[in-house]
Amino acid sequence: MIKIALMGHGVVGSGVAELLEDKSRELEHKAGETLSCAKILDLRDFPDTPYADRFTKDFNEIVSDSAIQIVVEAMGGLHPAYEFVKACLEKGKSVVTSNKELVAEKGSELLRLAKEKNVNFFFEASVGGGIPIIRPMHLCLAANQIDEIYGILNGTTNFILTKMIKEQMTFQDALLLAQKLGYAEKDPSADVDGVDACRKICILASLAFGRQIYPREVYTEGISKITLEDVEYAKNAGYAIKLIGQAKRLSKDKCCVLVSPAFVPIDNQLSGIDDVFNGVLIKGDAAGEVLFYGKGAGKLPTASAVVADIVHIAKSSHTSLSLTWEDSNADSVADISTYENAFYYRLRGSISPKKAEELWGPLTFLSRKGQPADEIAFLTGCMLQARAAAIEQKLGGQTEILGKIRLLA
Amino acid sequence: MIKIALMGHGVVGSGVAELLEDKSRELEHKAGETLSCAKILDLRDFPDTPYADRFTKDFNEIVSDSAIQIVVEAMGGLHPAYEFVKACLEKGKSVVTSNKELVAEKGSELLRLAKEKNVNFFFEASVGGGIPIIRPMHLCLAANQIDEIYGILNGTTNFILTKMIKEQMTFQDALLLAQKLGYAEKDPSADVDGVDACRKICILASLAFGRQIYPREVYTEGISKITLEDVEYAKNAGYAIKLIGQAKRLSKDKCCVLVSPAFVPIDNQLSGIDDVFNGVLIKGDAAGEVLFYGKGAGKLPTASAVVADIVHIAKSSHTSLSLTWEDSNADSVADISTYENAFYYRLRGSISPKKAEELWGPLTFLSRKGQPADEIAFLTGCMLQARAAAIEQKLGGQTEILGKIRLLA
Repeated sequence: MIKIALMGHGVVGSGVAELLEDKSRELEHKAGETLSCAKILDLRDFPDTPYADRFTKDFNEIVSDSAIQIVVEAMGGLHPAYEFVKACLEKGKSVVTSNKELVAEKGSELLRLAKEKNVNFFFEASVGGGIPIIRPMHLCLAANQIDEIYGILNGTTNFILTKMIKEQMTFQDALLLAQKLGYAEKDPSADVDGVDACRKICILASLAFGRQIYPREVYTEGISKITLEDVEYAKNAGYAIKLIGQAKRLSKDKCCVLVSPAFVPIDNQLSGIDDVFNGVLIKGDAAGEVLFYGKGAGKLPTASAVVADIVHIAKSSHTSLSLTWEDSNADSVADISTYENAFYYRLRGSISPKKAEELWGPLTFLSRKGQPADEIAFLTGCMLQARAAAIEQKLGGQTEILGKIRLLA
Repeated sequence: MIKIALMGHGVVGSGVAELLEDKSRELEHKAGETLSCAKILDLRDFPDTPYADRFTKDFNEIVSDSAIQIVVEAMGGLHPAYEFVKACLEKGKSVVTSNKELVAEKGSELLRLAKEKNVNFFFEASVGGGIPIIRPMHLCLAANQIDEIYGILNGTTNFILTKMIKEQMTFQDALLLAQKLGYAEKDPSADVDGVDACRKICILASLAFGRQIYPREVYTEGISKITLEDVEYAKNAGYAIKLIGQAKRLSKDKCCVLVSPAFVPIDNQLSGIDDVFNGVLIKGDAAGEVLFYGKGAGKLPTASAVVADIVHIAKSSHTSLSLTWEDSNADSVADISTYENAFYYRLRGSISPKKAEELWGPLTFLSRKGQPADEIAFLTGCMLQARAAAIEQKLGGQTEILGKIRLLA
C-alpha cells in the first residue's frame, strides 16, 4: 500500500481525493499497489466529506509521517507551497503538483532536490489540465530536439476570444459571461493579462531548452485591448485572433519566449481550437509537428493528470524518473526587441495608405463593413520588434494606433 | 552502456540507427547511460553505411549475446518477427517494435511474456508514427476509463481523400500521386482497404479495453469506392469524408470497433486534419476529449518514437513498466449489425424522395451542381446497421446504390 497525503482541498485537491476513492480498484490494478489517501491538509473544515477523519491543519503531520510516500500539492500560490514541497522532498517523499506558479518559479531547484533524494517531482497537471503534455514531451519526444512550442494555454481567454469571434460579443460581455459560467475568477487579471499562459509557456520552455525560464523574463501581453473591429479585420483576412504562448530555440543558448495575442491563419490547427479548449503544438527535429489538444482546466481533467503522476510514481517504485532542467543563466531569453514578426495595425487619423507604406514598407490592407473613412488597417511584412517600435515613433500626433497585434510567426 | 540490436534495416530501422548515432550525446544525457547499437540484422548488404561492421545475417548472434539488453524489431510482417521477438523476450531482453501487425495479432501473448521475464515490450511507434499516443494513453490517462477512441490513423488514405476534397482529384489520380510521392506502396491495398488503420485501432482498443482485439474481428471498409460526387455532396452539407478507425465501450465486456469512411462534421477537430497527418481523439471519463495530432509515418518521426521507447527502458533500468492486456475472449467485439449510425446514401434510378422517406424515415436531402434528374442523395437518421441493410433489400431493381457512407457517430 502506498500512503498519499493531499495538501489543499480546493477544486483540484478535492478532485484528486474523489478519483482516489472512486477508482481505487482500477488504480490498484494499474499501479500494482493500493493507493490510499491518508491525510488531507487544509485550513478550512470539510465535515461532510466521506474522508472527514483524514483532515489536518498541521503540515507536520504530513512531513513527519514516514509512512507517507507521495505528497500532492494542490494549494496553489508560491507560499507556503514552495516551503512545504521542499520539506517533503527533503524527507524523501515524492511530490506531485498542479501548481504552475511553483514550477515556473522554482522548478529547477525542486527538480534538483528530487534527483538528489532519489524521489520524483512530477507536474503533468500544471500545463494543459488533463491533456498529456509534460510526460509526452519528456518521454515520448526524448529523441527529439524541441525547436519550437506554441499554443493556446489558457482556456478562459480562449473562451472570451471565441465568443468575440463567433458571436460578436464585446470583450467586456464575454468576460462577464465567462465569470458567470465559472471559467473566470472575480479578479480575472491572471487569465486576461496572460500571466497564467506565461507560467505555462515557461514550464514548457524550461523542459524543452533544459534551463529554467522565469516568467519575469518573458514579454507578456493580455487580450483586454482586443476589439470587435480587430476581430472582424482578422476574420476578413483569413485569421483568428488567439492568445498564444510561444517559445523558439534561436541558438544553442538563446531562445525567444513570449505571450501575446496573435493573428493565427485559419488553416493552422490552432485557429480551430475554440471555447475553453487548449492546444499545444510542439516541433521536434525528428517527429516534426505534434499537437496535443483537450480541456486545459476543470476539476476532474486536472485531477486525473495528478492521479496519473501518482500511478507513475507507484509503478516505478524507487527509480527516480524525474526529468531535470538547469538553473537559469539569466541570459537565455533573448530581448523582445530582437524578435521578428509581421504585425497587424489599425490606425485612425490623417495617415494615407501611401504614407503608411512609406513608413512600414509594402503592406496588405484590410477592410471591414462600416469602416470609417479615417481608419486604415493593414498587415506589415516581417520585421524586428525594435523596428516596428521605431516606425511608430515617426507617426505624427494626428494618427492614433487603435490596434496592434502580432502575426503568428 | 546499454547494448542494442536492430532487426531490420529498412526505412524505420535505418532511421533508428541514424538517430542513435547522430544523437548519441543527447541520448546518453537523457537515458543516463550510453546507448550503443551493437548489431544490425538484415539479409541484405549495406556496405556503405558507417556501421557496416555491425551487420549480421544470423539471428543467433543477437539472441545468444547476453550483453544485448534491448532489441528493436523493425522488420515488419508477422513471420519471422513474431518468433524472433518471442525468443528475445524469453532470453530476458526488452523489445521495442514499430510493427503494428505483430502487436495487433500477438500483443497479449508478448506482453504477458515480457511481464513474466520482468522486461519491457514497447511499441509507441506502431500507432501514429512520431505522435505520442500509446504512452500518453497508458501513463497519462491512467486515472481515466477510456470510453471511446476515434481517429485518422492512416496517412496515405488521408492524403488521397484530401486531394479529392481540396483539388477535386479522382480517387485513381490521387492514388497515383500518392504513389509517385512515396506515400503509397506499389500495391496500395493495405492502406486503401483499411487494413493498416484496422491494425492500429485494434492496438488502441486492446490498450483501452484491456483485452486483445484482433483485426479479423473488426469490420473494415476502405476508401476505393468514394467518388468525387460523394465528396461534393458531403462538402455541401458541411462534412468532410475521412477514413475513421473507431472503438467504443458499449458495456463492461463489449465494445464496438470498426474502420470505415465517415462523414465528419466540419466543426469536428478531425475534419481539419489533412494530407498525410494523423489525429487520434481519446475520450476519458475524467479528462474528457483529448486529441493527438502529427505526422503518422515517415522515417525519422517513426524512428524517434522507437528511440524514445529505448530511452524509457534505459532510464527505468530493471523495473518492468510494460502495460498488459488480456487475451481475447472471442466475444468482446459486438457484431457490426448491432451498431447504430446515421448514413449517407446516393441512389440512382426511379426512386422518389417521398418513396425514400417511406423506407428510411425522415431524411435530409443533399444537392450538388449538375445533379442528374435520376440521382438522389440524403442523410438518414440514426439506425441499426441491420435495419439499414434490411431497407436496402426492399429497393427495387430499378434503383442502384451508388454510395453509402456512415456519419461519424
